[in-house]
Amino acid sequence: MKIFVYYTPERVPDGTVAECAIAVDVLRATTTIATALAAGAEAIQVFSDLDKLIATSATWPAERCIRVGERGGKTVDGFDMGNSPFDCTPERVKACRLFMSTTNGTRSLQRIESAKTVIAAALVNREAVAKFIYTQQPETVWIVGSGWEGSYSLEDTVCAGAIAHSLLLATGIPLEDLAGNDETIAAIALYRSYREDLLSLLQQASHGKRLLNLNCHEDLKYCSQTDILDVLPVQQQPGVLVAH
Amino acid sequence: MKIFVYYTPERVPDGTVAECAIAVDVLRATTTIATALAAGAEAIQVFSDLDKLIATSATWPAERCIRVGERGGKTVDGFDMGNSPFDCTPERVKACRLFMSTTNGTRSLQRIESAKTVIAAALVNREAVAKFIYTQQPETVWIVGSGWEGSYSLEDTVCAGAIAHSLLLATGIPLEDLAGNDETIAAIALYRSYREDLLSLLQQASHGKRLLNLNCHEDLKYCSQTDILDVLPVQQQPGVLVAH
Repeated sequence: MKIFVYYTPERVPDGTVAECAIAVDVLRATTTIATALAAGAEAIQVFSDLDKLIATSATWPAERCIRVGERGGKTVDGFDMGNSPFDCTPERVKACRLFMSTTNGTRSLQRIESAKTVIAAALVNREAVAKFIYTQQPETVWIVGSGWEGSYSLEDTVCAGAIAHSLLLATGIPLEDLAGNDETIAAIALYRSYREDLLSLLQQASHGKRLLNLNCHEDLKYCSQTDILDVLPVQQQPGVLVAH
Repeated sequence: MKIFVYYTPERVPDGTVAECAIAVDVLRATTTIATALAAGAEAIQVFSDLDKLIATSATWPAERCIRVGERGGKTVDGFDMGNSPFDCTPERVKACRLFMSTTNGTRSLQRIESAKTVIAAALVNREAVAKFIYTQQPETVWIVGSGWEGSYSLEDTVCAGAIAHSLLLATGIPLEDLAGNDETIAAIALYRSYREDLLSLLQQASHGKRLLNLNCHEDLKYCSQTDILDVLPVQQQPGVLVAH
Protein backbone atom coordinates (compact mmCIF):
# COMPACT_ATOMS: atom_id res chain seq x y z
CA MET A 1 0.00 0.00 0.00
CA LYS A 2 1.16 3.52 -0.87
CA ILE A 3 -0.54 6.64 0.45
CA PHE A 4 -0.42 9.93 -1.43
CA VAL A 5 -1.72 13.05 0.29
CA TYR A 6 -2.71 15.96 -1.96
CA TYR A 7 -3.43 19.24 -0.20
CA THR A 8 -6.00 20.40 -2.74
CA PRO A 9 -7.84 18.91 -5.75
CA GLU A 10 -5.59 21.00 -8.03
CA ARG A 11 -2.54 19.03 -6.85
CA VAL A 12 -3.99 15.64 -7.89
CA PRO A 13 -1.97 14.38 -10.88
CA ASP A 14 -3.61 14.10 -14.28
CA GLY A 15 -3.69 10.97 -16.37
CA THR A 16 -3.73 8.49 -13.51
CA VAL A 17 -6.23 7.27 -10.96
CA ALA A 18 -5.94 5.66 -7.54
CA GLU A 19 -7.53 2.37 -6.59
CA CYS A 20 -8.98 4.15 -3.56
CA ALA A 21 -9.45 7.92 -3.26
CA ILE A 22 -10.61 9.83 -0.20
CA ALA A 23 -12.02 13.36 -0.21
CA VAL A 24 -11.57 15.42 2.96
CA ASP A 25 -13.31 18.68 3.87
CA VAL A 26 -13.31 18.78 7.66
CA LEU A 27 -14.83 22.30 7.75
CA ARG A 28 -17.45 21.20 6.95
CA ALA A 29 -18.67 19.25 3.90
CA THR A 30 -17.36 15.76 4.65
CA THR A 31 -18.11 16.11 8.37
CA THR A 32 -21.69 16.97 7.42
CA ILE A 33 -21.88 14.10 4.90
CA ALA A 34 -20.73 11.58 7.52
CA THR A 35 -23.15 13.03 10.08
CA ALA A 36 -26.12 12.95 7.70
CA LEU A 37 -25.50 9.34 6.68
CA ALA A 38 -25.01 8.30 10.31
CA ALA A 39 -28.37 9.97 11.04
CA GLY A 40 -30.10 7.84 8.42
CA ALA A 41 -30.04 9.96 5.25
CA GLU A 42 -30.61 7.78 2.17
CA ALA A 43 -27.79 9.42 0.17
CA ILE A 44 -25.89 12.63 -0.45
CA GLN A 45 -25.71 13.86 -4.02
CA VAL A 46 -23.09 16.56 -4.63
CA PHE A 47 -23.05 19.29 -7.25
CA SER A 48 -20.66 22.08 -8.14
CA ASP A 49 -23.38 23.93 -10.05
CA LEU A 50 -26.33 25.29 -8.05
CA ASP A 51 -28.71 25.39 -11.04
CA LYS A 52 -28.08 21.75 -11.81
CA LEU A 53 -28.67 20.93 -8.14
CA ILE A 54 -32.03 22.74 -8.21
CA ALA A 55 -33.09 21.01 -11.45
CA THR A 56 -32.14 17.52 -10.25
CA SER A 57 -33.63 17.91 -6.78
CA ALA A 58 -36.92 19.09 -8.34
CA THR A 59 -37.40 15.57 -9.78
CA TRP A 60 -37.24 14.06 -6.28
CA PRO A 61 -40.24 13.57 -3.93
CA ALA A 62 -40.41 16.80 -1.94
CA GLU A 63 -40.80 15.09 1.45
CA ARG A 64 -37.52 13.21 0.97
CA CYS A 65 -35.54 16.04 -0.61
CA ILE A 66 -33.23 18.40 1.31
CA ARG A 67 -31.27 21.09 -0.48
CA VAL A 68 -27.94 21.90 1.18
CA GLY A 69 -26.15 24.93 -0.20
CA GLU A 70 -23.19 26.82 1.21
CA ARG A 71 -21.09 29.61 -0.25
CA GLY A 72 -18.45 31.43 1.80
CA GLY A 73 -19.59 29.67 4.97
CA LYS A 74 -23.21 30.86 4.65
CA THR A 75 -26.46 29.16 3.57
CA VAL A 76 -27.48 29.79 -0.04
CA ASP A 77 -30.72 31.79 -0.21
CA GLY A 78 -33.77 29.56 -0.59
CA PHE A 79 -31.96 26.36 0.42
CA ASP A 80 -33.08 24.13 3.28
CA MET A 81 -29.73 23.98 5.05
CA GLY A 82 -26.26 25.46 5.02
CA ASN A 83 -23.29 23.25 5.69
CA SER A 84 -23.62 22.66 9.43
CA PRO A 85 -23.54 19.08 10.73
CA PHE A 86 -25.91 20.17 13.52
CA ASP A 87 -28.72 20.48 10.99
CA CYS A 88 -28.42 16.77 10.21
CA THR A 89 -30.55 15.31 13.00
CA PRO A 90 -32.29 11.95 12.44
CA GLU A 91 -35.66 13.74 12.70
CA ARG A 92 -34.72 15.96 9.82
CA VAL A 93 -32.69 13.76 7.44
CA LYS A 94 -33.83 10.15 7.96
CA ALA A 95 -34.62 8.49 4.60
CA CYS A 96 -34.02 11.79 2.80
CA ARG A 97 -31.60 12.53 0.00
CA LEU A 98 -29.41 15.59 0.54
CA PHE A 99 -28.65 17.55 -2.63
CA MET A 100 -25.48 19.39 -1.68
CA SER A 101 -23.22 22.09 -3.04
CA THR A 102 -20.43 23.68 -1.00
CA THR A 103 -17.63 26.13 -1.74
CA ASN A 104 -14.80 23.64 -1.62
CA GLY A 105 -15.81 20.11 -0.60
CA THR A 106 -17.65 19.38 -3.82
CA ARG A 107 -14.57 19.95 -5.98
CA SER A 108 -12.41 17.36 -4.26
CA LEU A 109 -15.13 14.71 -4.54
CA GLN A 110 -15.56 15.45 -8.23
CA ARG A 111 -11.82 15.41 -8.88
CA ILE A 112 -11.56 11.81 -7.66
CA GLU A 113 -14.91 10.42 -8.82
CA SER A 114 -13.32 8.04 -11.36
CA ALA A 115 -11.38 6.08 -8.72
CA LYS A 116 -12.52 2.49 -8.15
CA THR A 117 -13.48 3.31 -4.57
CA VAL A 118 -14.34 6.87 -3.52
CA ILE A 119 -14.78 7.75 0.15
CA ALA A 120 -15.66 10.92 2.07
CA ALA A 121 -13.66 11.29 5.28
CA ALA A 122 -13.48 13.71 8.17
CA LEU A 123 -12.04 13.54 11.67
CA VAL A 124 -15.40 12.34 13.02
CA ASN A 125 -15.26 9.09 10.98
CA ARG A 126 -11.48 8.72 10.63
CA GLU A 127 -11.25 5.25 12.20
CA ALA A 128 -14.13 3.84 10.12
CA VAL A 129 -12.31 5.00 6.98
CA ALA A 130 -8.93 3.65 8.10
CA LYS A 131 -10.42 0.26 9.05
CA PHE A 132 -12.13 -0.12 5.69
CA ILE A 133 -8.92 0.69 3.80
CA TYR A 134 -6.93 -1.70 5.95
CA THR A 135 -9.44 -4.44 5.14
CA GLN A 136 -9.50 -3.67 1.42
CA GLN A 137 -5.69 -3.28 1.09
CA PRO A 138 -5.72 -1.11 -2.04
CA GLU A 139 -2.36 -0.66 -3.77
CA THR A 140 -2.69 3.12 -3.96
CA VAL A 141 -4.65 5.46 -1.71
CA TRP A 142 -5.10 9.15 -2.44
CA ILE A 143 -6.21 11.45 0.36
CA VAL A 144 -7.31 14.74 -1.17
CA GLY A 145 -7.89 17.86 0.90
CA SER A 146 -10.32 20.53 -0.21
CA GLY A 147 -8.56 23.59 1.14
CA TRP A 148 -10.08 27.00 0.59
CA GLU A 149 -10.29 28.18 -2.99
CA GLY A 150 -7.17 26.30 -4.01
CA SER A 151 -5.13 27.00 -0.86
CA TYR A 152 -3.61 24.63 1.64
CA SER A 153 -5.66 24.04 4.78
CA LEU A 154 -4.57 22.84 8.20
CA GLU A 155 -7.84 21.06 8.98
CA ASP A 156 -7.85 18.83 5.90
CA THR A 157 -4.14 18.11 6.18
CA VAL A 158 -4.39 17.08 9.84
CA CYS A 159 -7.27 14.75 8.93
CA ALA A 160 -5.23 13.24 6.07
CA GLY A 161 -2.43 12.76 8.59
CA ALA A 162 -4.82 11.14 11.09
CA ILE A 163 -5.95 8.58 8.49
CA ALA A 164 -2.37 7.89 7.35
CA HIS A 165 -1.26 7.57 10.98
CA SER A 166 -3.95 4.93 11.64
CA LEU A 167 -2.89 2.99 8.55
CA LEU A 168 0.76 3.22 9.58
CA LEU A 169 -0.10 1.58 12.91
CA ALA A 170 -2.49 -0.99 11.41
CA THR A 171 -0.25 -2.14 8.56
CA GLY A 172 3.12 -1.94 10.32
CA ILE A 173 4.60 -0.74 7.02
CA PRO A 174 7.54 1.64 7.68
CA LEU A 175 6.72 5.30 7.06
CA GLU A 176 9.24 5.65 4.24
CA ASP A 177 7.56 2.79 2.37
CA LEU A 178 3.94 3.71 3.11
CA ALA A 179 4.33 7.41 2.22
CA GLY A 180 4.04 7.93 -1.52
CA ASN A 181 4.94 11.62 -1.36
CA ASP A 182 6.39 14.32 0.90
CA GLU A 183 2.94 15.63 1.79
CA THR A 184 2.05 12.34 3.51
CA ILE A 185 5.04 12.59 5.87
CA ALA A 186 4.24 16.22 6.69
CA ALA A 187 0.55 15.45 7.28
CA ILE A 188 1.41 12.68 9.75
CA ALA A 189 3.81 15.04 11.58
CA LEU A 190 1.06 17.67 11.80
CA TYR A 191 -1.41 15.15 13.23
CA ARG A 192 1.10 13.87 15.77
CA SER A 193 1.86 17.45 16.87
CA TYR A 194 -1.78 18.37 17.45
CA ARG A 195 -3.55 15.06 18.15
CA GLU A 196 -4.21 16.01 21.77
CA ASP A 197 -5.64 19.41 20.86
CA LEU A 198 -7.20 19.33 17.43
CA LEU A 199 -9.69 22.03 18.41
CA SER A 200 -6.91 24.56 18.98
CA LEU A 201 -5.47 23.74 15.55
CA LEU A 202 -8.86 24.24 13.90
CA GLN A 203 -9.26 27.54 15.75
CA GLN A 204 -5.91 28.72 14.34
CA ALA A 205 -6.71 27.58 10.79
CA SER A 206 -7.71 30.36 8.42
CA HIS A 207 -11.04 28.75 7.57
CA GLY A 208 -11.61 27.98 11.24
CA LYS A 209 -11.18 31.69 12.02
CA ARG A 210 -13.60 32.53 9.21
CA LEU A 211 -16.23 30.22 10.75
CA LEU A 212 -15.61 31.62 14.24
CA ASN A 213 -16.38 35.06 12.82
CA LEU A 214 -19.68 33.60 11.60
CA ASN A 215 -20.35 32.34 15.17
CA CYS A 216 -19.81 28.68 14.33
CA HIS A 217 -17.99 27.87 17.60
CA GLU A 218 -19.95 24.67 18.22
CA ASP A 219 -19.37 23.52 14.64
CA LEU A 220 -15.60 23.75 15.15
CA LYS A 221 -15.82 21.77 18.38
CA TYR A 222 -17.90 19.08 16.70
CA CYS A 223 -15.68 18.86 13.60
CA SER A 224 -12.50 18.54 15.70
CA GLN A 225 -13.62 15.27 17.32
CA THR A 226 -12.06 12.02 16.08
CA ASP A 227 -13.79 8.67 15.61
CA ILE A 228 -17.21 9.56 17.00
CA LEU A 229 -19.15 8.19 13.99
CA ASP A 230 -18.85 4.62 12.74
CA VAL A 231 -19.98 5.47 9.23
CA LEU A 232 -18.29 5.06 5.85
CA PRO A 233 -19.63 7.32 3.07
CA VAL A 234 -18.79 5.63 -0.25
CA GLN A 235 -19.60 6.66 -3.78
CA GLN A 236 -22.36 4.54 -5.31
CA GLN A 237 -22.31 6.33 -8.64
CA PRO A 238 -20.47 9.55 -9.60
CA GLY A 239 -21.57 12.27 -7.21
CA VAL A 240 -23.79 10.05 -5.05
CA LEU A 241 -22.56 8.92 -1.64
CA VAL A 242 -24.24 6.29 0.55
CA ALA A 243 -23.37 4.59 3.83
CA HIS A 244 -21.38 1.42 3.16
CA MET B 1 5.43 41.04 12.12
CA LYS B 2 3.48 38.49 10.07
CA ILE B 3 5.12 35.45 8.49
CA PHE B 4 3.69 33.81 5.37
CA VAL B 5 5.15 30.49 4.25
CA TYR B 6 4.59 29.52 0.61
CA TYR B 7 5.54 25.97 -0.32
CA THR B 8 6.50 26.83 -3.90
CA PRO B 9 7.01 29.99 -5.98
CA GLU B 10 3.70 29.24 -7.75
CA ARG B 11 1.83 29.74 -4.45
CA VAL B 12 3.14 33.30 -3.92
CA PRO B 13 0.21 35.70 -4.41
CA ASP B 14 0.19 38.07 -7.36
CA GLY B 15 -0.21 41.82 -7.10
CA THR B 16 1.47 42.24 -3.73
CA VAL B 17 4.99 42.17 -2.37
CA ALA B 18 6.50 41.52 1.05
CA GLU B 19 8.81 43.90 2.85
CA CYS B 20 11.17 40.97 3.32
CA ALA B 21 11.17 37.79 1.21
CA ILE B 22 13.27 34.69 1.76
CA ALA B 23 13.97 32.02 -0.85
CA VAL B 24 14.69 28.50 0.40
CA ASP B 25 16.15 25.59 -1.55
CA VAL B 26 17.82 23.38 1.04
CA LEU B 27 18.69 20.67 -1.55
CA ARG B 28 20.81 22.40 -2.66
CA ALA B 29 20.82 25.88 -4.24
CA THR B 30 20.50 28.11 -1.17
CA THR B 31 22.77 25.85 0.90
CA THR B 32 25.38 26.20 -1.84
CA ILE B 33 24.86 29.98 -2.08
CA ALA B 34 25.38 30.39 1.68
CA THR B 35 28.43 28.14 1.58
CA ALA B 36 30.02 29.96 -1.37
CA LEU B 37 29.55 33.39 0.22
CA ALA B 38 30.90 32.12 3.56
CA ALA B 39 33.93 30.84 1.63
CA GLY B 40 34.60 34.30 0.21
CA ALA B 41 32.84 34.34 -3.15
CA GLU B 42 32.29 37.93 -4.34
CA ALA B 43 28.67 37.30 -5.40
CA ILE B 44 26.23 34.75 -6.78
CA GLN B 45 24.31 35.73 -9.89
CA VAL B 46 21.33 33.50 -10.66
CA PHE B 47 19.71 32.73 -14.01
CA SER B 48 16.80 30.60 -15.12
CA ASP B 49 18.07 30.56 -18.70
CA LEU B 50 21.36 28.75 -19.38
CA ASP B 51 22.12 30.69 -22.59
CA LYS B 52 21.77 34.00 -20.80
CA LEU B 53 24.04 32.70 -18.05
CA ILE B 54 26.70 31.75 -20.60
CA ALA B 55 26.46 35.12 -22.37
CA THR B 56 26.68 37.16 -19.15
CA SER B 57 29.48 35.12 -17.62
CA ALA B 58 31.51 35.50 -20.84
CA THR B 59 31.82 39.24 -20.08
CA TRP B 60 33.45 38.49 -16.72
CA PRO B 61 37.23 38.02 -16.15
CA ALA B 62 37.79 34.29 -16.64
CA GLU B 63 39.89 33.84 -13.49
CA ARG B 64 37.05 35.17 -11.31
CA CYS B 65 34.18 33.46 -13.11
CA ILE B 66 32.65 30.13 -12.07
CA ARG B 67 29.71 28.66 -13.94
CA VAL B 68 27.39 26.58 -11.75
CA GLY B 69 24.75 24.62 -13.60
CA GLU B 70 22.48 21.86 -12.37
CA ARG B 71 19.57 20.10 -14.02
CA GLY B 72 17.88 17.09 -12.42
CA GLY B 73 20.56 16.91 -9.72
CA LYS B 74 23.44 16.65 -12.23
CA THR B 75 26.08 19.11 -13.48
CA VAL B 76 25.27 20.77 -16.81
CA ASP B 77 27.77 19.71 -19.50
CA GLY B 78 30.63 22.17 -19.88
CA PHE B 79 29.94 23.96 -16.57
CA ASP B 80 32.54 24.33 -13.82
CA MET B 81 30.40 22.98 -11.00
CA GLY B 82 27.09 21.28 -10.30
CA ASN B 83 25.11 22.28 -7.28
CA SER B 84 27.15 20.71 -4.48
CA PRO B 85 28.19 22.90 -1.53
CA PHE B 86 31.36 20.79 -1.25
CA ASP B 87 32.68 22.35 -4.45
CA CYS B 88 32.60 25.77 -2.77
CA THR B 89 35.94 25.70 -0.96
CA PRO B 90 37.72 29.01 -0.24
CA GLU B 91 40.55 27.89 -2.58
CA ARG B 92 38.10 27.56 -5.41
CA VAL B 93 35.58 30.39 -4.94
CA LYS B 94 37.35 33.21 -3.07
CA ALA B 95 36.80 36.57 -4.84
CA CYS B 96 34.99 34.80 -7.66
CA ARG B 97 31.49 35.41 -8.96
CA LEU B 98 29.35 32.29 -9.32
CA PHE B 99 26.97 32.37 -12.30
CA MET B 100 24.33 29.87 -11.24
CA SER B 101 21.32 28.11 -12.70
CA THR B 102 19.54 25.26 -10.92
CA THR B 103 16.36 23.28 -11.58
CA ASN B 104 14.29 24.83 -8.82
CA GLY B 105 16.16 27.28 -6.59
CA THR B 106 16.46 29.95 -9.25
CA ARG B 107 12.69 30.25 -9.71
CA SER B 108 11.94 31.08 -6.09
CA LEU B 109 14.60 33.80 -6.02
CA GLN B 110 13.24 35.32 -9.21
CA ARG B 111 9.64 35.17 -7.97
CA ILE B 112 10.49 37.39 -4.99
CA GLU B 113 13.14 39.67 -6.51
CA SER B 114 10.96 42.78 -6.24
CA ALA B 115 10.71 42.63 -2.44
CA LYS B 116 12.50 45.41 -0.53
CA THR B 117 14.82 42.86 1.09
CA VAL B 118 15.52 39.50 -0.56
CA ILE B 119 17.41 36.79 1.31
CA ALA B 120 18.58 33.26 0.49
CA ALA B 121 18.18 30.88 3.42
CA ALA B 122 18.94 27.25 4.17
CA LEU B 123 19.25 25.22 7.35
CA VAL B 124 23.00 25.93 7.47
CA ASN B 125 22.45 29.69 7.92
CA ARG B 126 19.01 29.64 9.57
CA GLU B 127 20.02 31.55 12.70
CA ALA B 128 21.84 34.29 10.76
CA VAL B 129 18.67 34.85 8.73
CA ALA B 130 16.38 34.82 11.77
CA LYS B 131 18.62 37.27 13.68
CA PHE B 132 18.68 39.71 10.78
CA ILE B 133 14.89 39.64 10.43
CA TYR B 134 14.44 40.08 14.15
CA THR B 135 16.70 43.15 14.01
CA GLN B 136 14.98 44.61 10.94
CA GLN B 137 11.42 43.93 12.20
CA PRO B 138 9.74 43.92 8.78
CA GLU B 139 5.93 44.03 8.81
CA THR B 140 5.57 41.11 6.42
CA VAL B 141 7.96 38.22 5.81
CA TRP B 142 7.50 35.70 3.03
CA ILE B 143 9.38 32.41 3.20
CA VAL B 144 9.19 30.74 -0.19
CA GLY B 145 10.17 27.13 -0.77
CA SER B 146 11.43 25.93 -4.11
CA GLY B 147 10.01 22.42 -4.10
CA TRP B 148 10.60 20.17 -7.06
CA GLU B 149 9.04 21.24 -10.33
CA GLY B 150 6.10 22.89 -8.60
CA SER B 151 5.60 20.27 -5.90
CA TYR B 152 5.72 20.57 -2.13
CA SER B 153 9.02 19.60 -0.52
CA LEU B 154 9.74 18.49 3.03
CA GLU B 155 13.24 19.98 3.12
CA ASP B 156 12.21 23.53 2.21
CA THR B 157 9.16 23.41 4.46
CA VAL B 158 11.15 22.25 7.48
CA CYS B 159 13.63 25.08 6.87
CA ALA B 160 10.79 27.61 6.63
CA GLY B 161 9.51 26.18 9.90
CA ALA B 162 12.96 26.45 11.49
CA ILE B 163 13.19 30.15 10.61
CA ALA B 164 9.62 30.84 11.79
CA HIS B 165 10.30 28.90 15.00
CA SER B 166 13.36 31.07 15.75
CA LEU B 167 11.33 34.23 15.14
CA LEU B 168 8.53 32.93 17.36
CA LEU B 169 11.02 32.52 20.22
CA ALA B 170 12.83 35.81 19.55
CA THR B 171 9.76 38.02 19.19
CA GLY B 172 7.54 36.38 21.81
CA ILE B 173 4.58 37.04 19.50
CA PRO B 174 1.93 34.30 19.93
CA LEU B 175 1.84 31.78 17.08
CA GLU B 176 -1.70 32.71 16.04
CA ASP B 177 -0.62 36.34 15.58
CA LEU B 178 2.77 35.70 13.97
CA ALA B 179 1.49 33.13 11.46
CA GLY B 180 0.00 34.84 8.41
CA ASN B 181 -1.26 31.61 6.85
CA ASP B 182 -1.94 27.94 7.57
CA GLU B 183 1.31 26.87 5.92
CA THR B 184 3.34 28.71 8.58
CA ILE B 185 1.72 26.76 11.41
CA ALA B 186 2.25 23.45 9.59
CA ALA B 187 5.90 24.30 8.80
CA ILE B 188 6.65 25.03 12.46
CA ALA B 189 4.99 21.74 13.49
CA LEU B 190 7.13 19.87 10.94
CA TYR B 191 10.31 21.48 12.25
CA ARG B 192 9.42 20.73 15.87
CA SER B 193 8.71 17.09 14.97
CA TYR B 194 12.05 16.54 13.24
CA ARG B 195 14.40 19.10 14.78
CA GLU B 196 16.45 16.40 16.49
CA ASP B 197 16.82 14.35 13.33
CA LEU B 198 16.68 16.56 10.27
CA LEU B 199 18.92 14.18 8.33
CA SER B 200 16.34 11.39 8.56
CA LEU B 201 13.67 13.77 7.26
CA LEU B 202 15.86 14.79 4.32
CA GLN B 203 16.55 11.12 3.58
CA GLN B 204 12.79 10.45 3.43
CA ALA B 205 12.08 13.49 1.23
CA SER B 206 11.49 12.69 -2.43
CA HIS B 207 14.30 14.98 -3.60
CA GLY B 208 16.56 13.63 -0.86
CA LYS B 209 15.97 10.10 -2.19
CA ARG B 210 16.74 11.34 -5.70
CA LEU B 211 20.08 12.74 -4.50
CA LEU B 212 20.89 9.56 -2.57
CA ASN B 213 20.43 7.66 -5.83
CA LEU B 214 23.02 10.02 -7.33
CA ASN B 215 25.38 9.13 -4.44
CA CYS B 216 25.08 12.51 -2.73
CA HIS B 217 25.04 11.08 0.81
CA GLU B 218 27.51 13.63 2.17
CA ASP B 219 25.57 16.48 0.57
CA LEU B 220 22.44 15.45 2.47
CA LYS B 221 24.36 15.29 5.74
CA TYR B 222 25.84 18.72 5.15
CA CYS B 223 22.55 20.33 4.08
CA SER B 224 20.71 18.95 7.15
CA GLN B 225 22.90 20.87 9.62
CA THR B 226 21.46 23.98 11.27
CA ASP B 227 23.27 27.23 12.04
CA ILE B 228 26.79 26.21 10.99
CA LEU B 229 27.35 29.30 8.80
CA ASP B 230 27.07 32.87 10.06
CA VAL B 231 26.38 34.31 6.63
CA LEU B 232 23.45 36.29 5.24
CA PRO B 233 23.06 36.21 1.44
CA VAL B 234 21.09 39.33 0.44
CA GLN B 235 20.08 40.58 -2.97
CA GLN B 236 22.16 43.56 -4.08
CA GLN B 237 20.36 43.96 -7.38
CA PRO B 238 17.83 41.62 -9.03
CA GLY B 239 19.47 38.20 -9.37
CA VAL B 240 22.73 39.14 -7.61
CA LEU B 241 23.31 37.97 -4.04
CA VAL B 242 26.16 39.12 -1.80
CA ALA B 243 27.11 38.55 1.83
CA HIS B 244 25.52 41.21 4.03
